[in-house]
Amino acid sequence: MPPSQLHPHDTCKVLVLGAGNFGSCLADHLGDSEHEVWLWSRSKSQVDFFNKHHRNPECLKDHVFPSTIIAVGPDLPDAELIKEMDVLLFAIPTEGVRETLTILRPRLNLEKLPLLIFVNKGIEIATNALTLEIIADTCGADVAKVATFISGPSFAKEIVRRQPTSVSVASLTPERAERASQVFHQPWFRCYTGRDPIGMELAGAVKNVYAIASGVAEGLGFENNTRAMLITRCLSEMTRIGTAYGASPLTFLSLAGVGDLFLTCSSPTSRNYTVGHRLGKGEKLDDIIRTLGSVAEGVTTTKALRKIIDDLGVEAPIATAVYGVLYEGKDLQETVKDLMSLPPLPELDLPAQNEGGPVRQLMEKLGLEYGAMH
Amino acid sequence: MPPSQLHPHDTCKVLVLGAGNFGSCLADHLGDSEHEVWLWSRSKSQVDFFNKHHRNPECLKDHVFPSTIIAVGPDLPDAELIKEMDVLLFAIPTEGVRETLTILRPRLNLEKLPLLIFVNKGIEIATNALTLEIIADTCGADVAKVATFISGPSFAKEIVRRQPTSVSVASLTPERAERASQVFHQPWFRCYTGRDPIGMELAGAVKNVYAIASGVAEGLGFENNTRAMLITRCLSEMTRIGTAYGASPLTFLSLAGVGDLFLTCSSPTSRNYTVGHRLGKGEKLDDIIRTLGSVAEGVTTTKALRKIIDDLGVEAPIATAVYGVLYEGKDLQETVKDLMSLPPLPELDLPAQNEGGPVRQLMEKLGLEYGAMH
Repeated sequence: MPPSQLHPHDTCKVLVLGAGNFGSCLADHLGDSEHEVWLWSRSKSQVDFFNKHHRNPECLKDHVFPSTIIAVGPDLPDAELIKEMDVLLFAIPTEGVRETLTILRPRLNLEKLPLLIFVNKGIEIATNALTLEIIADTCGADVAKVATFISGPSFAKEIVRRQPTSVSVASLTPERAERASQVFHQPWFRCYTGRDPIGMELAGAVKNVYAIASGVAEGLGFENNTRAMLITRCLSEMTRIGTAYGASPLTFLSLAGVGDLFLTCSSPTSRNYTVGHRLGKGEKLDDIIRTLGSVAEGVTTTKALRKIIDDLGVEAPIATAVYGVLYEGKDLQETVKDLMSLPPLPELDLPAQNEGGPVRQLMEKLGLEYGAMH
Repeated sequence: MPPSQLHPHDTCKVLVLGAGNFGSCLADHLGDSEHEVWLWSRSKSQVDFFNKHHRNPECLKDHVFPSTIIAVGPDLPDAELIKEMDVLLFAIPTEGVRETLTILRPRLNLEKLPLLIFVNKGIEIATNALTLEIIADTCGADVAKVATFISGPSFAKEIVRRQPTSVSVASLTPERAERASQVFHQPWFRCYTGRDPIGMELAGAVKNVYAIASGVAEGLGFENNTRAMLITRCLSEMTRIGTAYGASPLTFLSLAGVGDLFLTCSSPTSRNYTVGHRLGKGEKLDDIIRTLGSVAEGVTTTKALRKIIDDLGVEAPIATAVYGVLYEGKDLQETVKDLMSLPPLPELDLPAQNEGGPVRQLMEKLGLEYGAMH
């Protein structure tokens, strides 16, 4: 590991919830920045192994973590530990957020809330809710208003090697985003603040659908022009959907938007990209899912996104094509031909934002003015 | 070549000026779309070879062109041929545009102007002018107002193999951009129209500076997170410069913006990227330029861009860093360290457009309202 070149920070007490790839690498980063870090895992054997060897037996296996990090679990930490924390960092899958928050809510000191930072990406399957809405449902509007989100192009295995990385940090409460930036910011891990967590969350989820499309194009043998065209048109489509949803179009120019889209769409190691690539090579979806060995979130997000697109009545030919191939048995070659056969179009046809879409509804639920995040 | 699947078009008479890589591939594309195509070259031997063998002896050497394309030259075509044309397509270097237009201007029928389409990218060295301004200077405002620009991620060698490709087509006169789209649009070559040729030209020129930065990062051994971070921050910087210049920020989301940036910054075959890559590996700029065998436009554009940045007073740390390394003998490692050591920043800090910058001046020169292209 290269020598740490630390910026002066206040030392924080941070509890990282979730010891997967991303939670672990962030625990490592924060521990190396001289914060006091606890890492929660739901697996007792993982906790024991980590505390004994300072290694994670499940992921980033070659990496030695700072010996100051304490693994805890398998039960969720009690109120005593929680109330001592300056930062709770949620690095658990979106499907687990509702249950975890429901358990943790009574253990929070609402008078002196720690920084609540969420790094999961995705849309809750049963409800089509983004995480901000799950937070509002489980912990109330006051907690959701201060929740902070970190997203961006950041492979865990590169973060533990201190490869220069930058992320977007957004909250409806700007001071919270700034504070989170101060906690995370280092010369090898730069933070850029914003105030549109909803657009950021949406981008983080839907990019996985476009990663499938990008994998398909690669699997079919298309080259550089096509890859650049596809990523650009996916970005344009994402921006259009986001704008209709009520997010700020500029959010899609961020590290969490175009940055993460670019990383996911050009990386053969991304699961979603791999699904597309194997489809492009002629494999059947059922066979791919059965042999993939892990979940490709984009496959379920495609279904959620289709509903969002239909509800908003927005044009999204690429996402619609991915849905057709995954869920309606559409022929891949025919689908590509149909997409390319669309007539010439105006390039940047953003829908009007008068209605404000789901964002306005969510902002009303939080008691905030629509436009606070623009 | 795959079978042509033509859309019904009017047949046009097109004169392509410039038989380099890009002019040749567009002549091929249009000839294959059943337009009547003339291809001008300033080299007599190239003209003779092309008409005899239907091959270009200088570039795309393996490709056989439609036998209907007629090469002309070495003199610029006379008024008789020019007046017969529906489309003049300028595929000559930016440095040659002023001279070529000065010669052609008296041969144009101003009462019935053909489509004038420009595909060159770059900033004129002596004047820092974009092509739209060169057109206004040499042919007058009325010609500049209808000039149309095509730009986007489009390697010539992939276009001649009919790899799916998409481009931006922009003009201050929207009907001209639409007409140009109709001429070029095919299922393998999609056109997207816009009305901000100035932002598009600016993006096409400055992306070459960022391709150098991207090559440097690769040469230094940085990986996926860093590549995605850099392209995103370059896009953000390009958008900030463009907005201060008076262009529309959304133009940078287009195929000519992010699309071409992405292609150029991730392609080892781009000359500008190669300059950066070799710098990153420790070579000296003089040695690189001497042995490169062709011009890397980004090296001169860096100088022009530095002046634009200074004139506008806009923050552009990446372009400034490239300038420092190329022209001020700054140490590469120190420069990277300085860039990464900047404090945390708000992510999308676009400058106010109240002044309108150089775009407003140019629009006034053309007798147009500032805002017509927004």
